[in-house]
Amino acid sequence: MSPRQDTRQLILDTALRLFEERGYARTTMRAIAEEAGVTPSNAYYWFASKDELVQAFYLRIQTEHAERAAMALASGLPLTDRLRAVEHAFLDVIADYHGFGSAFVAIAISPESPTHPLSESSAPAREQSMAIYREVVAGAAPRVPDKVRDILPELLWLCHLGVTLFWVTDRSPGQERTRRLVDATVPLITPMLRVARLPWGGAVVDQVRGALAVAMERAG
Amino acid sequence: MSPRQDTRQLILDTALRLFEERGYARTTMRAIAEEAGVTPSNAYYWFASKDELVQAFYLRIQTEHAERAAMALASGLPLTDRLRAVEHAFLDVIADYHGFGSAFVAIAISPESPTHPLSESSAPAREQSMAIYREVVAGAAPRVPDKVRDILPELLWLCHLGVTLFWVTDRSPGQERTRRLVDATVPLITPMLRVARLPWGGAVVDQVRGALAVAMERAG
Repeated sequence: MSPRQDTRQLILDTALRLFEERGYARTTMRAIAEEAGVTPSNAYYWFASKDELVQAFYLRIQTEHAERAAMALASGLPLTDRLRAVEHAFLDVIADYHGFGSAFVAIAISPESPTHPLSESSAPAREQSMAIYREVVAGAAPRVPDKVRDILPELLWLCHLGVTLFWVTDRSPGQERTRRLVDATVPLITPMLRVARLPWGGAVVDQVRGALAVAMERAG
Repeated sequence: MSPRQDTRQLILDTALRLFEERGYARTTMRAIAEEAGVTPSNAYYWFASKDELVQAFYLRIQTEHAERAAMALASGLPLTDRLRAVEHAFLDVIADYHGFGSAFVAIAISPESPTHPLSESSAPAREQSMAIYREVVAGAAPRVPDKVRDILPELLWLCHLGVTLFWVTDRSPGQERTRRLVDATVPLITPMLRVARLPWGGAVVDQVRGALAVAMERAG
């Protein structure tokens, strides 16, 4: 890592620490710069706004998730095992950030927010995350039926957003309730795939495809 | 309505107007009292905090939703038609409040928030809303299979939370995208019920029941 990249990392680390200590709203770019020991103009060179810090945080989370997921996905396992491993890997990655998870959702939830998971500026982090679910589906043994291979990654990614939201509001110790929710919902994928293989399953898959298209419209 | 109830309504109406004009965070109880032309102590007599105003708002929304839903549910229709009518009735009720929907979600999303939809203090509004979905299921023709009658209202209510969240972040004109999402997802209930009637459907229903129990744990 170059010294310049070090500065960027230092600013991001400092920002995350201050978000946790003081709350997101009360943390200014100026305070982040001061705590990191850099000039405000240097901080603004790397991050034009707190929104950009949030995007950088998203990307860091996704990169860590991709790394852990790759380990979990190394051996060719059934789809449910792969999905469960990937979700638990995500919960491992975000465990330390529970203190300000709700502050981030509070910002992302606003219709015009650039940090909305379906916004244009969230595209890099979203694509990186979606790629994990494409890999979950692509490498599953037995092979996922062809007619759901194109829609399943997006569907799983939306469920993953739901899990993340549940985690944010989860006040059980260590957010263990979210892990139990993952364990309780992942097996439902088996009957879903079984339906897809039924004679009337093709029509259902098309209905799901239509609903997904509306849900993902904003992401383009 | 008694004059006392009039005062309560006036304070709530004023609060909602100020939340829209100034944002939730920037609106104080003192400002609400002043705008409503009552003393701060009178305002605090009716609502001990802004959280209580939010709960009163939830209850008003649910009461209006229940009234409109009752009209939509008068004639014995199939489950999908009943559900679609009830969701569109809800979107009619909340249409005017889109301006501060995200502020409310931002507050409700915090793990310790008393306005969280699964919190103890949200129980009255939640129960009123859940009753609508129980009625949607109970009065459907043809009759909903027995083995899903106990879990379907909760499942539909959780989906309804998801629709509400989608609506909050929906920036399409008049939030028409949310209406299209409702129209695209409601028909999926038919294949779900069809699965419940299959020989292996009972086990799937039990899996869904287990997942729902974890999701609703906090509500007790």
